[in-house]
Formats: sequence, C-alpha cells, structure tokens
Amino acid sequence: MHTRSAHRSLLVIGSVALDDIDGPFGLHKDLLGGSASFIARVASHFTKNVSVVAVIGDDFPRKHVDELTALGVDTSGIETKPGETFHWVGKYADDLATRETLDTRLGVFATFQPKLGQAHRDAEIVMLGNIDPVLQLDVLNQTKKPALVAVDTMNLWIDIKRPDLLKVLERSHLLMVNDEEARLLTKQPSLRRAASEILKMGPTSVIIKRGDAGAMLFYEGGVFAAPALPLSDVKDPTGAGDSFAGGLMGYLAYAGDLAPTTIRTAMMVGSVMGSFAVEQFSVDGIRDLSPARIQQRFEHMNELTHYERVKL
Amino acid sequence: MHTRSAHRSLLVIGSVALDDIDGPFGLHKDLLGGSASFIARVASHFTKNVSVVAVIGDDFPRKHVDELTALGVDTSGIETKPGETFHWVGKYADDLATRETLDTRLGVFATFQPKLGQAHRDAEIVMLGNIDPVLQLDVLNQTKKPALVAVDTMNLWIDIKRPDLLKVLERSHLLMVNDEEARLLTKQPSLRRAASEILKMGPTSVIIKRGDAGAMLFYEGGVFAAPALPLSDVKDPTGAGDSFAGGLMGYLAYAGDLAPTTIRTAMMVGSVMGSFAVEQFSVDGIRDLSPARIQQRFEHMNELTHYERVKL
Repeated sequence: MHTRSAHRSLLVIGSVALDDIDGPFGLHKDLLGGSASFIARVASHFTKNVSVVAVIGDDFPRKHVDELTALGVDTSGIETKPGETFHWVGKYADDLATRETLDTRLGVFATFQPKLGQAHRDAEIVMLGNIDPVLQLDVLNQTKKPALVAVDTMNLWIDIKRPDLLKVLERSHLLMVNDEEARLLTKQPSLRRAASEILKMGPTSVIIKRGDAGAMLFYEGGVFAAPALPLSDVKDPTGAGDSFAGGLMGYLAYAGDLAPTTIRTAMMVGSVMGSFAVEQFSVDGIRDLSPARIQQRFEHMNELTHYERVKL
Repeated sequence: MHTRSAHRSLLVIGSVALDDIDGPFGLHKDLLGGSASFIARVASHFTKNVSVVAVIGDDFPRKHVDELTALGVDTSGIETKPGETFHWVGKYADDLATRETLDTRLGVFATFQPKLGQAHRDAEIVMLGNIDPVLQLDVLNQTKKPALVAVDTMNLWIDIKRPDLLKVLERSHLLMVNDEEARLLTKQPSLRRAASEILKMGPTSVIIKRGDAGAMLFYEGGVFAAPALPLSDVKDPTGAGDSFAGGLMGYLAYAGDLAPTTIRTAMMVGSVMGSFAVEQFSVDGIRDLSPARIQQRFEHMNELTHYERVKL
C-alpha cells in the first residue's frame, strides 16, 4: 500500500448477525453475517483505523469478534446483551439472482441503542450501515463533525420511515442504494433522474448498486460506471453490497481525500472486494486476502475496462 | 474521422420492418423498424462501404430506402415483393424495462430468400441480423471468405432451430446476444460460463448485451465491459441493440482491423449509438447525427469510465 495516505478514521455502524442460508449449494446455518461484519472486515484490508459499533447476543461465537480484533479493528463498540443475536434466514433461487427472506429474528437488535465512545465520536468518516434511520440519526447526533457520512438503507425504511430517512439524508454526503431502492425512494424509473432527485435530498454523491451489473456514481457534474467482474463461480451473494461498501470506505479512509476522482477508484476497489465475497459463503471469500491478491484483481478490473480513447 | 482506416466492406442482412409501438408515450404506428434498418443506418456514420440485403413489401414507404441511399448505403440488395412488409406490434411497460409482442405479421418476409449480388458476395465483413438461421446459412454459402462474420439471434431460433443455429455459429467469428439468450443457448446461469460455452461453438468472440447495464465482450484471454450511458429520457428502446451492432460493425469496417483491442473501442462506439437511438422513436435519434455529436458522446463515455489505475 503506497504512501500518499492520510488514513482517516472510519466508524462503521451496522448489524452483526447470524445467517441461515439455503439455496443451490444446500443449507448453511449460523453463518457470520450482517452489514458491519462485512464492511469492517473488508475495510481493514486498507486501513487499520476502523471501529465498529454494533450489538450481539450472548449466543454469538466469540471467535468472530476476536478475528475482527486480530485484523486491527477496534471492536470495543460491539456491545454484548443477554438474548439472541440478530438472525436472518433466507433462500436463494437456483441461479442466485433472487432470494426470499424466510425469517428475521431481531433478538437483541430490537432494543439496540448505539452508544458511541469518545474516540468513535471523533470519527472522520462514518458509515451508517442499513439499520433503522432513527438509529442512524441517533448516531449522527453523537458524532462531532465527520468529513464524510455515508448511508445505506433498504425498502423497508423507505416505506415505513421515510421522514426519518430524509432527515438522515439531509446530513449525509453519500447514499448507497440498489436500483430498486433508488426508484422506490424517488418514484423515478430512470436511474439518472432518480440520482438527480436524491442529490436534492442532501447527499453530494449517490452510488446505485446493480449487483452483477456493477455500480454507478452520480454527483454534481459527473457520472461513473464501475462494472462487476464476471465470475465463473458464485456461491453466496450475501454481503456483496456490504463488501463493496467496505472496500469503498476502506479505500477512502486510506486515501484520505474524498474527491470524486478518489471515489471512482474506491468504487473499483469496492467491486474487487465484492467479487471476492460472493465466491464463498459468509466472510470466507474475504478472509486471508493478501495485498498481492487484491492488487491482482484490481488489475483484472483495469483490463476489464480498458479501451483506447480514440478520436473517431 | 481519422486516417488509419482501411474501410472494409460491410454487408448487412436482416429485417426491414414497420412497427406499431405502444407504451407510456402513446401508440405510434407504421414506424420504420427492423434490424437492418438500424444497423445499416448507424454503420453509415463510420464508413460509406455498407450494403443491405433485405426484403420489403409493396406497402413500404419509398422514402425510407431513399434516405438510406442518400446516406451512401448500397440498397440494391433490398428486394421489393408484392405483399405486406414485415410488421411488428409491441407494447412497452410504463418503465420501458419490459415489452410484449402483440402481433407479428411476417408478410413478404415469410418467403424471403436472400440473393447476394456479385459485390455482396465479396464483402469482407458480414453482419447476419436476427433472422432464421437457415437463411443465415444460405447467406454464408453465397459469400466468399469474409474476414469477419457477426451473428445476432433470438430465443425463438435457439428453441426451434438449434441445429441450424449451431451450424451458423461454427462458421461465425462474433456472436451478439442478450444475457437471456446466452443463458438459454448454453443452460449456464453464469454469463462467464455461458460465454465460455459459446466460444466452444465456433465464434472467437461473444458479446453479451444487457440493455441499460451495457455489454460484455468475452474472447480467449480477455473480457471487456462497456457500460451504457445513463440517460434522463428514454422514449423507445426498440432498435437499441441493433444500433449498438451498427456502431460496432461500422467502426470495425472503418478501422479495418479486427483485433480484440479494436472490438473494445467498437463496443464503446456501439454504446454511444445505442444511447442516441433510444432517445427518440424509430430511427429519429440516429438521424442527422454530426461527427462532432458522436465524438462528444464518445467523450462522455470516456468520462463515464475514467478512474485512476493506482497501485493499492
């Protein structure tokens, strides 16, 4: 990793979960999941200045927290409470293109009240994973003045907590959503128009994720398309978007500047990390990744996108 | 247009049709449509060495042929026969993402027997638009030894004429299909695996079109992703894929070489031309395009795909 970096501090708020995942490769139970699990782990490949605020139940295997700590992540903000860890049960279609939620047990997440320690309040970059916007606001109220607030959300909150979500967006710089969510939020079928509407809600940038079709960045005066690497073997798409976010935010924290040019590169890094994540179940695909392997896949992305900028 | 070009001759075989198109912008009747109409017109922006072989009925407005001729296209291979021109009637959903065919009247197309004149037989580049693979084979049998044979097809032929289609593929260099067709042809949900299977069928390159998610090129030793330009106003997606093919083939004919590097650039040109096509009904979006406007949009594509190839 080169040396222009300023290594800003990155605070990640999100879920730490256990997932039961069914699909073409059979049923896998009690897998480590949750947005914060993926984001923080992936970001730790780019900067050692990552903290997590989350909640787990007393059933949660300690080894998962220990692994994050061993990666250099500050896990002091992961609170253990009596009860069950947030548990998601889902089933993928045979082609892995769609999934259905079979069960969601909130457990200790139902009464989660994020409490930021002093160091967390000073974070320069804050990633609000997909949780209730009321909690996202609560976190924002505890931070001082982060240089970048990035937000993820989902259909549920757009439907039932729109006013709270809009308050979060007013105070955010970067929204990350998928295409369906962007359209639901804005009622605009055109992604370009949806992005324009979102940029009026507060964020200065919006990233629209499109699964294996890549992701697009929209900001005042620019658009960028980051493709996804086409893969022969996808085992588990769970955590793809969060791994993308982890690579993106980790690279931004590492690079130190938050200019559109840097966000473009960060998205390619995010795409690299998402491609590793889906090749294995849970966080297995993003475990034990050497800098050389990450660099190699980044270069595959360079080849994937290379063409001659000719004069026609 | 610069000067390295060798301007190979391009022969386009496909449909010339009249379309009735319904959707969020109302019903538009008797629009000029058909794969050859789009491909030849778009290609004429890049080379004047384009010929069309197709059939029209005696109801076909002469002005459409005259317009093609005025663009420098050799229309001597457009045969007029007594009866109705091929007529397609379709309806788009409000978000333009899906469409249904309400009626297809083959008319004079039902008995179409492509007959190539002497000049057509010598064509160096042959684009077989989406027609019955038996006719595609018939055309190939009339050509001498083209340097590049590109083929489009559709679900119908994959379903009911697979053996004929496979014979066409054995003699082709480049297959262009959409993602659904690639999966149907190979029974592989992964596009990367589908592409690998297709490369075993004969073509040395396959382009998988994904609508507003762009297109991917697969060849032995390489993959390329060309995004689509995100647009605020899409009026009519009909002909998007054929305009992409027209830009691609026109640029290849103009550039003269058929190396993967050139195909990559040609795909970006195709994406530019597809973006113009969908902004208006029928061929209106690709009518009266100046070289400056095409170059400007190619530069938008350059901005859309630009990022710094850093060392992480």
